Amino acid sequence: MFHRVIIHCTQMLNNVGVWLDKAEHHAASKKFDIAVLMSSRLAPDQKPFVYQVQSACDYVKAGAAWLSGQAPPRHPDDETTITELRARLAKTILFAESVKEGDYAGAEERRVTMTFAPPGSVIVGADYLIQMVVPNVFFHVTMAYAILRHNGVDIGKMDFLGPINWRPA
Amino acid sequence: MFHRVIIHCTQMLNNVGVWLDKAEHHAASKKFDIAVLMSSRLAPDQKPFVYQVQSACDYVKAGAAWLSGQAPPRHPDDETTITELRARLAKTILFAESVKEGDYAGAEERRVTMTFAPPGSVIVGADYLIQMVVPNVFFHVTMAYAILRHNGVDIGKMDFLGPINWRPA
Repeated sequence: MFHRVIIHCTQMLNNVGVWLDKAEHHAASKKFDIAVLMSSRLAPDQKPFVYQVQSACDYVKAGAAWLSGQAPPRHPDDETTITELRARLAKTILFAESVKEGDYAGAEERRVTMTFAPPGSVIVGADYLIQMVVPNVFFHVTMAYAILRHNGVDIGKMDFLGPINWRPA
Repeated sequence: MFHRVIIHCTQMLNNVGVWLDKAEHHAASKKFDIAVLMSSRLAPDQKPFVYQVQSACDYVKAGAAWLSGQAPPRHPDDETTITELRARLAKTILFAESVKEGDYAGAEERRVTMTFAPPGSVIVGADYLIQMVVPNVFFHVTMAYAILRHNGVDIGKMDFLGPINWRPA
């Protein structure tokens, strides 16, 4: 289940790639600089679009790493352009997909330290996945989606969900 | 795992209750009618705040029901006020919490029919949880959060995440 959930979070990053393509198309058709969308936000005290994508990437990367007993690779938050953001998505997806199902053995009981945990506290693997990784990945990808949606980019719910494993009834 | 994930989605609805309290406080302090926030949206072709909460409730209710082999109770989307929305959250939480861990036996293999599935298609339990219930619950609660945030309500990431099971290191 750990592997399936992390792979689905990774798929959400692939979905973000589709939204970026639509954002770029929107900017071109309206003749404005895509950089405007990259720095857009929904409130003055909220982090901008680029940060939302970086943060979603970080939670996918951290989840794949800590739950498989690895330290996450360092990915500095230095992206500013859509091209750099696509590269950030790609390297995150590559890392997350390098972690195989068997690597998550014992994930449920792994103890994860977080910088904003109360002093002397950790979070245990299953709680980390359910209460931290998944909510943060979805929070940040949805916020990225909301910023684009608010700015008129033509994305809809099926772009959000991405591919679904429908099976014959 | 099914039970833990659905219970966490249910907790997200409790978190929405906290955001409603803060939204009400914000409206009172700025002396505007809370109904303005209930009908707010981020784009003219997006559904309003009330719908976002109704839809999050529906996916929690449907997930708890179909994955435990029950038909979901009917909850008509007739709420317009914050009081009615709190009642919708409460009845959804009550139903979802009535489904016990053992009721999810066999959930992974259950076949779920969805109105927007391609003709002749179903989705199987684990995919339904990971690709449909969780993404839709988080999509709609985050969109509700984003609408409030955009309108100046004083909510932050910890209000989004809600209680975390920190353990002694």
